[in-house]
Amino acid sequence: MSSKVTGNAVIGQSGGPTCVINQSLVGAIIEAKKHPEIQKFYGALHGVKGILNENFIDLGAQDTAALEKVANTPSAALGSVRKKPTEEECKKIVEIFKKNNIRYFFYIGGNDSAETADIINQLALKSGYDLTSFHIPKTIDNDLLVTDHCPGYGSAAKFVAMAIMGDNLDNGAIPGIKVNVIMGRHAGFLTAASALGRQHENDGPHLIYVPEIPFSKEKFIQDVKDVYNRLGRCQIAVSEGISDGKGNPIFQSGVKDAHGNVQLSGSGGLGDMLIELIKQNIHGKLRARADTFGYLQRCFPCIVSESDAEEARRVGEFAVKSAVESDLKDGSVAIKTTGLFITPLHSVAKNTRGMPRDYMNEEGNNVTEKFLAYARPLVGKLPEIGKLKI
Amino acid sequence: MSSKVTGNAVIGQSGGPTCVINQSLVGAIIEAKKHPEIQKFYGALHGVKGILNENFIDLGAQDTAALEKVANTPSAALGSVRKKPTEEECKKIVEIFKKNNIRYFFYIGGNDSAETADIINQLALKSGYDLTSFHIPKTIDNDLLVTDHCPGYGSAAKFVAMAIMGDNLDNGAIPGIKVNVIMGRHAGFLTAASALGRQHENDGPHLIYVPEIPFSKEKFIQDVKDVYNRLGRCQIAVSEGISDGKGNPIFQSGVKDAHGNVQLSGSGGLGDMLIELIKQNIHGKLRARADTFGYLQRCFPCIVSESDAEEARRVGEFAVKSAVESDLKDGSVAIKTTGLFITPLHSVAKNTRGMPRDYMNEEGNNVTEKFLAYARPLVGKLPEIGKLKI
Repeated sequence: MSSKVTGNAVIGQSGGPTCVINQSLVGAIIEAKKHPEIQKFYGALHGVKGILNENFIDLGAQDTAALEKVANTPSAALGSVRKKPTEEECKKIVEIFKKNNIRYFFYIGGNDSAETADIINQLALKSGYDLTSFHIPKTIDNDLLVTDHCPGYGSAAKFVAMAIMGDNLDNGAIPGIKVNVIMGRHAGFLTAASALGRQHENDGPHLIYVPEIPFSKEKFIQDVKDVYNRLGRCQIAVSEGISDGKGNPIFQSGVKDAHGNVQLSGSGGLGDMLIELIKQNIHGKLRARADTFGYLQRCFPCIVSESDAEEARRVGEFAVKSAVESDLKDGSVAIKTTGLFITPLHSVAKNTRGMPRDYMNEEGNNVTEKFLAYARPLVGKLPEIGKLKI
Repeated sequence: MSSKVTGNAVIGQSGGPTCVINQSLVGAIIEAKKHPEIQKFYGALHGVKGILNENFIDLGAQDTAALEKVANTPSAALGSVRKKPTEEECKKIVEIFKKNNIRYFFYIGGNDSAETADIINQLALKSGYDLTSFHIPKTIDNDLLVTDHCPGYGSAAKFVAMAIMGDNLDNGAIPGIKVNVIMGRHAGFLTAASALGRQHENDGPHLIYVPEIPFSKEKFIQDVKDVYNRLGRCQIAVSEGISDGKGNPIFQSGVKDAHGNVQLSGSGGLGDMLIELIKQNIHGKLRARADTFGYLQRCFPCIVSESDAEEARRVGEFAVKSAVESDLKDGSVAIKTTGLFITPLHSVAKNTRGMPRDYMNEEGNNVTEKFLAYARPLVGKLPEIGKLKI
């Protein structure tokens, strides 16, 4: 039996949206109805910003059939936010929780959101207020600590794999050098997923570069030359966050967000820069183009991994169930192949992880079979590519 | 009864690939088997380049089940080309046709491909060689003359509509100004399709700019300010080919293709430029981002309009049937709501069309109901978006 108090709950969504973040929201809403400890279940609009403004909606009053449509809709139905509340704002949030008798706080997001939930929870407990704060993981980057993988990753990875499959056919039809820039500031999981759609000999991507491995322009040029000379074309997948290994991104726009992160997406800069590099160094008549997949990767309707959607739903349910039924005052839901479990908030807050080194080959320009074996079940079945007998 | 000679046939694919161009190819292959006038049916690899190099494959030997997979695979299974053959090369092609007893030439492509087919056909007939050349239309731009719409457009338009739907939700979750650059050098049909996914009040895109209407930076800034002040966000769809109305593109990379067309895709330049323009002119704390949809628009697997796929198949069949059964020595397949018909090659060669002016509003920054009524059946059903009751 848990010793949990009865009171109200609030849930918010934070950080970059995903295709399945609403599955977690709907999972939490439906689970909450089963627990009398939770009286009113509020949704905070735009995460902590909504809490600070007491901009709440009553999630218990939502129509169940409508909720299922929401679950299958990409992006954050409650609105999201990229805000790191100040200490003063965190104290204000605790006061607002007290005023509204909010005893359960659920925050769906990445490591920054886990950190925010952790700070708020500690402030509340220190002030003698009985609060339970749970983080519900989501990130297309797949970069959270402790967990095997993150809800949101499988679906974004499916989009990337399918986009690269189509682009590989395009590049094969009109041969040239094609750079595709994929999201991933520090973690290369999403860029690595570009390899999942390979089905035929010499299918792209022929080269893959991730942020975990220092990027050398000289090596890059040589790699591209080698593939181009061999195949007459070259399809490249590169993370937006590739850096020189001394912490300097190969490209950056100069704009920073509230968490101090440099803006990498929403600009075609890196792709254009790499194309320039290729044109300056590989001579002869050459067709070289870049695409930056941008925000399409995280919110494209219907391109969803079934297992990802199902897991995102279960993670939302499990957070609510664990918050109410366990004695834990804080936690984050983590996934192992054996199932879901709870890990302390501080264990996933702040820091992130990159890909294990052995998910990439020694040269650092392609994934290994080990990565493919890891990622395949997370993404699920991909379309079959037909080829003429030539 | 037709007076057509018996001989061999060749088919090629040309220009930018689409998601359904292989439907037309497979339609032609299967139809050809029904006509004894066509003995060998060759596929030329990479269009006219393949003809010039006599790089042919035997399409009659392809496995039927494998062909169905090819039909459902994006991009050009025979390989494509962006080559405008010189007069000398066209003469050489006629010689190659004579040598191989090729009496039927099918070229799948846009207006440039129709022109190429026309030149070759005229040269052949002038030299006394009995040749029938048919153009099979494909273009995501939807810019061919005579026809009501082009195979390839509906599927690319579906991708654009879905991408914008997802991005609209993303932009609603984390409000800001978002520019989306969509393919379309001279025709705005694809960019206009961005409006097809609107389902709820204030859904984006809030502003739409097409190449047919001169683009004014001052008007653009004022439009964006107005929407942003009203909604706190603004999602914009803009054609890559927007120009100042005096023939100068707002952005250009300086690179030209074999047809003299300036390269617009494969660069994030226009989007980045418009974001700069917004940041310089709209003050205050502002989140402004750009995505350039790029090549994903034309080859994304599975995002296919059913009616587009079915029509692309029929167009391929109809070209072969008409070439063999009619007395026409040349033609291009065109579509009206009443069905398919043949129009002379010269009527679709060279020139293209833009959108009718009344598909856009008077202000030139949004589509009209007339456009939506035109495009909806070409794209078909779009996913339903769920919203919380707020």
